[in-house]
Amino acid sequence: MKPVKWENNQLILIDQTKLPGDYVELEFTNYREVANAIKTMIVRGAPAIGVAAAYGLALAAIEFKGLSKKEMIENLDKASEILAETRPTAVNLFWAIDRMGRVWRKNEASPEELANALVLEAKAIDTEDVIMNKNMGNHGNSLIPVNATILTHCNAGALATAGYGTALGVIRAAHEAGKNIQVYADETRPLLQGARLTAWELHQDNIPVTLITDSMAGYLMKQGKIDLIIVGADRITANGDVANKIGTYSLAVLAKAHNVPFYVAAPTSTVDLNLQHGDQIPIEERHHDEVKLLKDYQLAPKDIKVYNPAFDVTPSQLITAIITDQGIANYPYENVLEQMVNGEKHVL
Amino acid sequence: MKPVKWENNQLILIDQTKLPGDYVELEFTNYREVANAIKTMIVRGAPAIGVAAAYGLALAAIEFKGLSKKEMIENLDKASEILAETRPTAVNLFWAIDRMGRVWRKNEASPEELANALVLEAKAIDTEDVIMNKNMGNHGNSLIPVNATILTHCNAGALATAGYGTALGVIRAAHEAGKNIQVYADETRPLLQGARLTAWELHQDNIPVTLITDSMAGYLMKQGKIDLIIVGADRITANGDVANKIGTYSLAVLAKAHNVPFYVAAPTSTVDLNLQHGDQIPIEERHHDEVKLLKDYQLAPKDIKVYNPAFDVTPSQLITAIITDQGIANYPYENVLEQMVNGEKHVL
Repeated sequence: MKPVKWENNQLILIDQTKLPGDYVELEFTNYREVANAIKTMIVRGAPAIGVAAAYGLALAAIEFKGLSKKEMIENLDKASEILAETRPTAVNLFWAIDRMGRVWRKNEASPEELANALVLEAKAIDTEDVIMNKNMGNHGNSLIPVNATILTHCNAGALATAGYGTALGVIRAAHEAGKNIQVYADETRPLLQGARLTAWELHQDNIPVTLITDSMAGYLMKQGKIDLIIVGADRITANGDVANKIGTYSLAVLAKAHNVPFYVAAPTSTVDLNLQHGDQIPIEERHHDEVKLLKDYQLAPKDIKVYNPAFDVTPSQLITAIITDQGIANYPYENVLEQMVNGEKHVL
Repeated sequence: MKPVKWENNQLILIDQTKLPGDYVELEFTNYREVANAIKTMIVRGAPAIGVAAAYGLALAAIEFKGLSKKEMIENLDKASEILAETRPTAVNLFWAIDRMGRVWRKNEASPEELANALVLEAKAIDTEDVIMNKNMGNHGNSLIPVNATILTHCNAGALATAGYGTALGVIRAAHEAGKNIQVYADETRPLLQGARLTAWELHQDNIPVTLITDSMAGYLMKQGKIDLIIVGADRITANGDVANKIGTYSLAVLAKAHNVPFYVAAPTSTVDLNLQHGDQIPIEERHHDEVKLLKDYQLAPKDIKVYNPAFDVTPSQLITAIITDQGIANYPYENVLEQMVNGEKHVL
């Protein structure tokens, strides 16, 4: 299951707005259409939109390689801006765009050679993301008991990444290690990534999964049915505060109240050392129709006011551990996260 | 707005499964169809199903008044059983059936006179419910600041009662008193009573309301946007534990963590002194399609396992105050609730 693929100089995305009803792959040759696909959540999940944006810039490089080097770079800068304006919260998008930009800002090559270099860099970002997820899975697996019922929120799976997944990568690793894993998946309103994507993805891998509405999670914890919670992240600040899908914060508070371990799994590309704490993270608010409409069915009166933040911020002190490709960090996170971003391993 | 009405020896229910898209009133002359309407949630809300069941027994009495007194009573007992089997959690259903039963178990009248007495008793239950809600509104209003942003869950409004509402009755009373009230309504998955009914009902009364998904409530509290929470109840045990719509427990835990007052508004007919604590309350689990399907649109893979409890239990120590028609109770609730059920007023 690979939501973001590069084939014959085309970007291929699984249309995640159509899952699980229809499995549709879309082909892209134009970065503006890639930007639109990110905005409309055809591709979603912090690592996956980073990889998609990188390939978007590879497409831009191919489009502009017939221009002069100066014009090509001006157009790549413009394309970077357009891709960066798609979604504000997940830092992987800006991380990937920045990493691609470093190639053309430092490269002495011809336009043709630069285009090749950018395609290779995007492929490297893609491949490395899968490797980071597998490493995260290995590290995170050490935190999972032999018998574990795990709650997760939204989709931090193969579909949210270049493959394998962050939170679901850890769950996969534990399952592959032969552990007896049961998963409860929050449906994750309003866009139902838990119901549509996580339930589908885990079911395809024969990992036992039970779907609940978001409002049921606390009651499950009260009944002692949840051994641990694991979620992904869209941005982690230097102090370990975590922006993730709306509802994550409530789960973390409930986990604390019930002494349930609360883990965050994310690659180091999700850590934003430029921000000191979570209040500095821009939180995307999305269109009210996401809450009021489902396909063409009106869930609420048409003229009702809606508040629709797509993310919330969980303070670091509510997080039992942060699992990255470099290892496992515990509170307080400041120094360890910085070391991890700088490539130092922290295997407990 | 009257969800349960008696006209020309017919019971008239607003079909709440169709709101807010369509406003449809259905006429009932047969108690079995009333039982089915309760089961399928054409009528819902603890006080409203109590009133509907009472009228169901009035219809049964009219149906059986041509029989001998003995046969009539046997049939009324049977009708009581069928109505009692519709939904397990809200105690108002059993309270209303029991109150109607006391009429035929003590009545020396002829079948014709008994039928008349039962119609009058059902009407009394109906009328008294509205009066209790208005009293609750008056008492509860004393807890609401002049400027207040209030969060509510599910629908504890006019549509959930014989009229005026419990939690929404308190909000109405504060609004009618000229207070500056803003409401956030949890959409309340899976059946979306917040989006479909509460948003609609408050909007019709020009009470400012903003719709959110259930997962957003904690983030609102974290931002300091919520001054207080008020919800209804389906059953309150002797110690003050409260069964209410799934998600209520999570809200109460979140309220505690954010020092937000958490109020429950319910008539004394919702208090079940036969149960000592909330673990004894039967919690209804409903069909998995409520979570997986919306109309004919498949929200999740068809063969996915679902857990769908319709209610949860909030322990009394998480509840700042219980507002009833008799006044306001604070923790610990044992003696005060018993006194309220026995008709003693507790106005703070």
